[in-house]
Amino acid sequence: MRFNYHMPTKILFGPGKLNDLSKETLPGKKALIVISSGKSMKNNGYLDRLVEILDRQGIEHVLFDRILPNPIKSHVMEGAALAKSQGCDFVIGLGGGSSIDSAKSIAVMAKNPGDYWDYVSGGTGKGMPAANGALPIVAITTTAGTGTEADPWTVITKEETNEKIGYGNSYTFPTLSVVDPELMLTVPKHLTAYQGFDALFHSTEGYIANIATPISDAYALKSIELIAKYLPLCVKDGNNIEARTQVALANTLSGFVESTSSCTSEHSMEHALSAYHPELPHGAGLIMLSEAYYTFFASKVPDRFVAMARAMGVDVDSLAPEDRPMSFVKALIKLQEDCGVRDLKMSDYGIKKEDIPELAENARKTMGGLFEADPYSLSLDETIEIMTNAYK
Amino acid sequence: MRFNYHMPTKILFGPGKLNDLSKETLPGKKALIVISSGKSMKNNGYLDRLVEILDRQGIEHVLFDRILPNPIKSHVMEGAALAKSQGCDFVIGLGGGSSIDSAKSIAVMAKNPGDYWDYVSGGTGKGMPAANGALPIVAITTTAGTGTEADPWTVITKEETNEKIGYGNSYTFPTLSVVDPELMLTVPKHLTAYQGFDALFHSTEGYIANIATPISDAYALKSIELIAKYLPLCVKDGNNIEARTQVALANTLSGFVESTSSCTSEHSMEHALSAYHPELPHGAGLIMLSEAYYTFFASKVPDRFVAMARAMGVDVDSLAPEDRPMSFVKALIKLQEDCGVRDLKMSDYGIKKEDIPELAENARKTMGGLFEADPYSLSLDETIEIMTNAYK
Ligand SMILES: [Fe+2]
Ligand SMILES: [Fe+2]
Repeated sequence: MRFNYHMPTKILFGPGKLNDLSKETLPGKKALIVISSGKSMKNNGYLDRLVEILDRQGIEHVLFDRILPNPIKSHVMEGAALAKSQGCDFVIGLGGGSSIDSAKSIAVMAKNPGDYWDYVSGGTGKGMPAANGALPIVAITTTAGTGTEADPWTVITKEETNEKIGYGNSYTFPTLSVVDPELMLTVPKHLTAYQGFDALFHSTEGYIANIATPISDAYALKSIELIAKYLPLCVKDGNNIEARTQVALANTLSGFVESTSSCTSEHSMEHALSAYHPELPHGAGLIMLSEAYYTFFASKVPDRFVAMARAMGVDVDSLAPEDRPMSFVKALIKLQEDCGVRDLKMSDYGIKKEDIPELAENARKTMGGLFEADPYSLSLDETIEIMTNAYK
Repeated sequence: MRFNYHMPTKILFGPGKLNDLSKETLPGKKALIVISSGKSMKNNGYLDRLVEILDRQGIEHVLFDRILPNPIKSHVMEGAALAKSQGCDFVIGLGGGSSIDSAKSIAVMAKNPGDYWDYVSGGTGKGMPAANGALPIVAITTTAGTGTEADPWTVITKEETNEKIGYGNSYTFPTLSVVDPELMLTVPKHLTAYQGFDALFHSTEGYIANIATPISDAYALKSIELIAKYLPLCVKDGNNIEARTQVALANTLSGFVESTSSCTSEHSMEHALSAYHPELPHGAGLIMLSEAYYTFFASKVPDRFVAMARAMGVDVDSLAPEDRPMSFVKALIKLQEDCGVRDLKMSDYGIKKEDIPELAENARKTMGGLFEADPYSLSLDETIEIMTNAYK
């Protein structure tokens, strides 16, 4: 049992906690605020509230409001250029995973020369060290899905080459994160479900990963338990603040899992899908893959599957031993039904069955590292097999 | 559910991990190495190994080897003066809790003027803010007890006034900690037991504390489970590296609990005992208090006690509901028997029954803050009652 543990982010957690940001010493004097190109941060008043907090502290700020749901490299470069030209000394990501991930990548490129893809590993990324570190990052999450507020990872797509690759280092942990479930009340039903399943899969992948530790296991099982219990309640009634709070906690715990264990190849396969089809939400792509993916792995690490089934509330002991590992997959399907996302189809997003070999190759080329964290080493054929089984 | 989460320390965990220190970027160019006045760091070769790692990295170092088992303020001031005069820019604590705690306090006083007690809160401490922060701290723990490698706390005694008070702020988290169970193999039986119970009580106190969170709960229950399972094995065979590793993990988790929840008044009462009787090991004092303390609180938060009993391996469901909370106390007594520490007596350390009112008052004056974390607010009479019940 040997591992390194590091999750340095300070987290303000709970309903109303955005207000507490005014009590914190922020890590700079001039912020680049990164938000999406949509209207929700403005219309919901979240941006105004943030600006008021900064103004009261005498902190200058510049707005960059161009981020897409599947964030792209050109916006990272644009945001970094703005941060540099305006003399920003820290970056605030306000919104969902796309805005916070972009804030992280912008923070790197505001301090390092060249192109973002010079530093990315995998695919056509050059994997150079970002020797200058990054500007300090503050994350204010308005969704419960990516866990990015509690991990170093940022996922950006290079549009020209259909590469959607995760990146992170010790500088891309947020210095400070706010997880305020009150900001999540307005997330629509279907996105609530997609994001909740994204969080779930960060924990289930991190739990079956071959680098899992007893600490990441504790986070993962708690997160799985909370999502199974509370995600259907959030989907049913988005205003249920208790359920929103528990799912927000599960999501933050799933970020801890990503910081202390690793995602596995399920995420690589999904990145291929949404790199080629940017209109496919990441969580939806994961849901499409999940039954086939976990069915494949249930026999590889059966004990891990039994523990996950138990965390999902399955009365495992009442089952015949040979049925226990797959009872996790059954509970997963039931959860998808309860959250109204059982009918998602790749074909509805324009994905063609004959494209699967190319997508599988893209997954292995761009995010090959996560295949190494799988508890069983998948061949290309097996990757294609899983993705084909997932196709409908 | 509202809380702040912060545990920024990077931890290298596992057998042999001291060697990995050579791969890390250390937070300075000249270290003050803080060790105890005993011989074990030298005789076991741990100091030589550390020095070799520093030399290879070209990092200068100065040795301060005066720390007592119950560390005192005058040594903090002395160490800080040495760090300043020698131009050290970071501090390394190598050893048990006393050396690491002293390193933390020295790190504060190397950067702030005046006396250490100007910054301590409680008792005659002036509670001033340590405005200049602290030098970066590296902790290399050779015991599994205080959890100090994974929390901001340092406990120092002011000899003249018999005040033993905990102190900490965001600067006293170690930047980097090494938890290498191989360094713990030489800890003698009785100290192994005392230290293991100290870790246990950090988790049990943090679990019943009124500021516990779902995250601290997950750490606490896992830590309690591991100590109940593996501490007797460590005591029986100090060379059992598997058991040592599990108890080291439990101890680090108990540090996480101290970072994210709080100790309660059991620790205040013990600090009074060992402030007046410095030859009493902290863990032994806690063991003496524990049966009476937890018996008192079992009826106050029965559900928490049931969960702790379950974590200790008690088959709670087979018990009558009214017996479940106290089954934790029974399991605690059994664990003390199994670890050979059931016969500890205050009278053996020169504590007199008639001193208890004064000790209780000292506990409330110097460490009154922890009484506020109790799940039930103790009066002075109840404090005396618990300590009297614990007396033998
Ligand atoms: Fe994800
Ligand atoms: Fe302690």
